[in-house]
Amino acid sequence: MDNFTFRNTTKIIFGKDTESQVGSETARYGNKILLHYGSGSIKKYELYDRILKSLKDAGLEIIELGGVQPNPRLGLVKEGIDLCRREKIDFILAVGGGSAIDSAKAIAVGVPYNGDVWDFFTGKASVEKVIPVGVILTIAAAGSESSGNSVITNEEGLYKRAVGSDILRPRFAILNPEITYTLPPNQTTCGVSDIMAHIMERYFTTVKEVDLTDRLCEATLKTVINNALIVLEEPKNYAARAEIMWAGTIAHNDLLSTGRIGDWASHQIEHELSGIYDVPHGAGLSTIFPAWMKYVYKKDPEKFAQFAVRVWNVEPDFRDVEKTALEGIKRLKDFYKEIGLPVTLKEMNIPYDRLEEMAEKCTEEGPRGNFVKLNKNDVLEILMMAR
Amino acid sequence: MDNFTFRNTTKIIFGKDTESQVGSETARYGNKILLHYGSGSIKKYELYDRILKSLKDAGLEIIELGGVQPNPRLGLVKEGIDLCRREKIDFILAVGGGSAIDSAKAIAVGVPYNGDVWDFFTGKASVEKVIPVGVILTIAAAGSESSGNSVITNEEGLYKRAVGSDILRPRFAILNPEITYTLPPNQTTCGVSDIMAHIMERYFTTVKEVDLTDRLCEATLKTVINNALIVLEEPKNYAARAEIMWAGTIAHNDLLSTGRIGDWASHQIEHELSGIYDVPHGAGLSTIFPAWMKYVYKKDPEKFAQFAVRVWNVEPDFRDVEKTALEGIKRLKDFYKEIGLPVTLKEMNIPYDRLEEMAEKCTEEGPRGNFVKLNKNDVLEILMMAR
Repeated sequence: MDNFTFRNTTKIIFGKDTESQVGSETARYGNKILLHYGSGSIKKYELYDRILKSLKDAGLEIIELGGVQPNPRLGLVKEGIDLCRREKIDFILAVGGGSAIDSAKAIAVGVPYNGDVWDFFTGKASVEKVIPVGVILTIAAAGSESSGNSVITNEEGLYKRAVGSDILRPRFAILNPEITYTLPPNQTTCGVSDIMAHIMERYFTTVKEVDLTDRLCEATLKTVINNALIVLEEPKNYAARAEIMWAGTIAHNDLLSTGRIGDWASHQIEHELSGIYDVPHGAGLSTIFPAWMKYVYKKDPEKFAQFAVRVWNVEPDFRDVEKTALEGIKRLKDFYKEIGLPVTLKEMNIPYDRLEEMAEKCTEEGPRGNFVKLNKNDVLEILMMAR
Repeated sequence: MDNFTFRNTTKIIFGKDTESQVGSETARYGNKILLHYGSGSIKKYELYDRILKSLKDAGLEIIELGGVQPNPRLGLVKEGIDLCRREKIDFILAVGGGSAIDSAKAIAVGVPYNGDVWDFFTGKASVEKVIPVGVILTIAAAGSESSGNSVITNEEGLYKRAVGSDILRPRFAILNPEITYTLPPNQTTCGVSDIMAHIMERYFTTVKEVDLTDRLCEATLKTVINNALIVLEEPKNYAARAEIMWAGTIAHNDLLSTGRIGDWASHQIEHELSGIYDVPHGAGLSTIFPAWMKYVYKKDPEKFAQFAVRVWNVEPDFRDVEKTALEGIKRLKDFYKEIGLPVTLKEMNIPYDRLEEMAEKCTEEGPRGNFVKLNKNDVLEILMMAR
């Protein structure tokens, strides 16, 4: 086990009707707030009205900025920064999934900074000051509701890059599983894929003797797998929605990183896919992850066999550890198919003519991943295997 | 799953040599600190010198108060409160296990309060202000290093009572597994018992559909069970000590309570035992818990069967769920015996003449427990079963 520091200060407010607490929670931090959201689908249901009522009851002044797209764009972030400065906003409330939250975090870090906010994403600047962010989560997926990360796409060159700092963790996150009842099935399954990927990126580590975090990862994965099948059959099953929503937060709140280093190559390869083709992040991950696994499992077949046995109930074959390992990868791929996720680039209509360009962009700052360090040719091989 | 709010703000600093960070961490919160510890065994090793050096290097002024006993006493807490007021202490650093930390928390809550600090333990006062506390943990057991609770024994009447508040969570907790290498085996095993009890108190709940927290509980229990056997054979096995130490924190940081209500009757019955007979908390728990389980399992045999199968690898017998459930309880009891813990009052030389008195004291504020509500006669039955 590696030495580690862990602190997650986000206050999780979980359960039915919890969005009614948003006004009193927000009032602890600010007076004039930016309400930041996506397509406006929040206005279709009563959610928007309930949020506005709670905020107004708490005496808060509200400025709105909608229009966050999936794979949130730098352009809107810059617009948000200008708006916050002009209006002297002191708190940002993100209502949505990872895209709205990541966009809010990027605005939060940009407002007090004298320079181009993209500097934080290229490593030219480091996060020292932010305006506080709160969240009402509408999609269980990204885990951004209690993480210290933000991933933004720069339209110029279609670069998708991340910034991270403990002080970027939201002050509070309101999670009402009922809000996810009306999600289209493909958003639910893309969320499931993202949650599973966050766990698996941490699970496959070169650090030995991390028994507890291994088991916590396996526990969270099993919960997600079991409940994904239920919510697809019964979208309004509260218990199953709740399990997935809470698992989505735990998957990415850094508890499952304690004592170990994660891999993250699959995420970075996927960022190239969705950076260029704007495919849903979760669909990109279900395509890349099994290919990555097949490419790297020989580095530590015993770990992949453990994954197969403990997560997928594969019967262990101690005379053929690789067979056991490969069966686990197969079960993961079968599970993705069962819940309707793509497992090939072809299914997403991604042509093969820019694979080398993606491999190049992915590794231009150096090799990717930790479980196995991947150079450009490795990434290209993985993309080829994902065709 | 029940609605819940979860926030744990304690900064965990985990790993080798981490005690060297105590000076810089403490300096964030105070200038003049109370160094609070137990028997002075910390002075036997170089730990004390290393801590003092780090604190002095950070320019901190240090006042010492040692002498915390297991089952920490109200008398010393009051002495600490007077000392802090007189010396204008602004931070308390506890070095030790649950006793030193709980004593530090009780002092922290008492200093700003105009009245008898015992008021917080009887429910006459509620926690609104504390002076900040930090921890260097020397025993993996109580989980007090990131909990918001303190348990203190009042010498007058030997009442052992608790106070709890989120603001009582330590600001930081330094956990170096190497510090636990020199613990006597019985302290190691009593710690293991306490950790397991914290998980099981949460695991046996009347709340249904709490799949994720069930699995996280099972994962943590399995880690503790597997590694307890290792550390008894190899006290200086870093990995095994680290697993138990981190599990001890997770067992009691409230993550495993999310979405459910715990039971806590076994803890309360044990408090009567150690309140009167001053037995180690962990030894009292290994005696009470199996008796409690046998007394209550018929309320939900399926949950006890799940415990048996998932934690103890019992083969499920679906035609005889009770048999499966009872086998799990037997395995727990066998495990306690295997690691040298008592499972009867007799082994601890506790006479049977005050059982009724303990049952009376335990329930004088009303029935105990949530999984099953226990009145005086129920508690007496459990104590009789534990003979």
